[in-house]
Amino acid sequence: MTDTARAWRVVLERIETDLLDGRLQPGDRLPPERELASTLGVGRSSVREALRVLEVMGLIRTGTGSGPTSGAIIIATPRGGMSTLLRLQVAAQGFPLDDIVQTRLVLESAVVEALAADTSRSTADARLVVQAMDAADLTPAEFLALDAQLHLALAEASGNTVIAAMMGGLRTAIESYVQAGAVLLADWNATAARLRREHHSILDAVDAGDGARARTLIHDHITDYYAEAGLARPA
Amino acid sequence: MTDTARAWRVVLERIETDLLDGRLQPGDRLPPERELASTLGVGRSSVREALRVLEVMGLIRTGTGSGPTSGAIIIATPRGGMSTLLRLQVAAQGFPLDDIVQTRLVLESAVVEALAADTSRSTADARLVVQAMDAADLTPAEFLALDAQLHLALAEASGNTVIAAMMGGLRTAIESYVQAGAVLLADWNATAARLRREHHSILDAVDAGDGARARTLIHDHITDYYAEAGLARPA
Repeated sequence: MTDTARAWRVVLERIETDLLDGRLQPGDRLPPERELASTLGVGRSSVREALRVLEVMGLIRTGTGSGPTSGAIIIATPRGGMSTLLRLQVAAQGFPLDDIVQTRLVLESAVVEALAADTSRSTADARLVVQAMDAADLTPAEFLALDAQLHLALAEASGNTVIAAMMGGLRTAIESYVQAGAVLLADWNATAARLRREHHSILDAVDAGDGARARTLIHDHITDYYAEAGLARPA
Repeated sequence: MTDTARAWRVVLERIETDLLDGRLQPGDRLPPERELASTLGVGRSSVREALRVLEVMGLIRTGTGSGPTSGAIIIATPRGGMSTLLRLQVAAQGFPLDDIVQTRLVLESAVVEALAADTSRSTADARLVVQAMDAADLTPAEFLALDAQLHLALAEASGNTVIAAMMGGLRTAIESYVQAGAVLLADWNATAARLRREHHSILDAVDAGDGARARTLIHDHITDYYAEAGLARPA
């Protein structure tokens, strides 16, 4: 039997190899814990540790029963995993705020440019969020939660699953700095009115197919708030 | 005692909350497994499952002994976690190749532009890799492993830790499509000679502070190989 402290890694590596070699595909069911344990010569607790890792990473969905259909199922919905990962890493202060904002600028500029260039992509979902943000009675927290949702909706509308997953992963980090910044603003109502106007302008530029303008608008939209809330790093 | 099937999530959420609230900081030691289990009212195996998740995500380093200094230590080196995550997700076919290449274009264009704009950033590490790639006796596999290393070195030189982590996460996915493409090339030696020239030109443009030229060069460098190897999606 493998050294128990690292036995879970044996399980993880075996499943990764099987995925890479095509022996395991999305939709396939993993053998039950007991069978995996005996095949790989590790304890059942090591199998369970590896399965938790795969579950959090969005690679498998585990069943709840213990019958013949209880084995975990391979899925390929990578967004959840990246989101959890980035959320935890930002919590552990793994990434400086400046780098997060800079990455937003890079990804979101590309998102609106791609959307403007491809008329088959719809901004309808993003428009719905923008309309919801026009309601006058929103609290700052409600407004900013919708704001985070809007930026994610744009990334998803662009159709690039990697960028949408990365934006999904940054969402909590973004929402948290934006909410923290709101408290520091001199005049919340003035800022909210400006943000509303900017959202409409960004979507108008995208729908008009003007990628360069959409890019400039979203860049200024992100950096102006960051500066206005006094979050920018001293030069 | 919490339902065992989800007890590991209780542990994970508690540690995340403690990180967000600042009760846990990088460098801090978690309580030993036994103590965490009794504080949270879960089994030790659930604590171990949560610790494995945090370990794979690059959030903690676990000790090997069982004495008073055996508790896991909070670290904040997020790269490893993102790399593992993206590697597993690409293995499970979570991301289409086109989206990976498109994301490379977005991130790497931003990387060379940022490098060109900031003379305090050094391309010395990237130059060393480019020089190693000039050796005549490299196999395609050796050449392309260095190629992946070069693109990661540029991202790290740019100083944006989020983008460097994302590029690190995409590295295995990129290396695997590039290696698969090499087999499909009509003339490996001609392609390798072109790639070598392009690498030098990209670094020259960066060092000359010409961000626009560096951006165009790296864009063409990535898309030309992708098209030449016949990997591009039919229109």
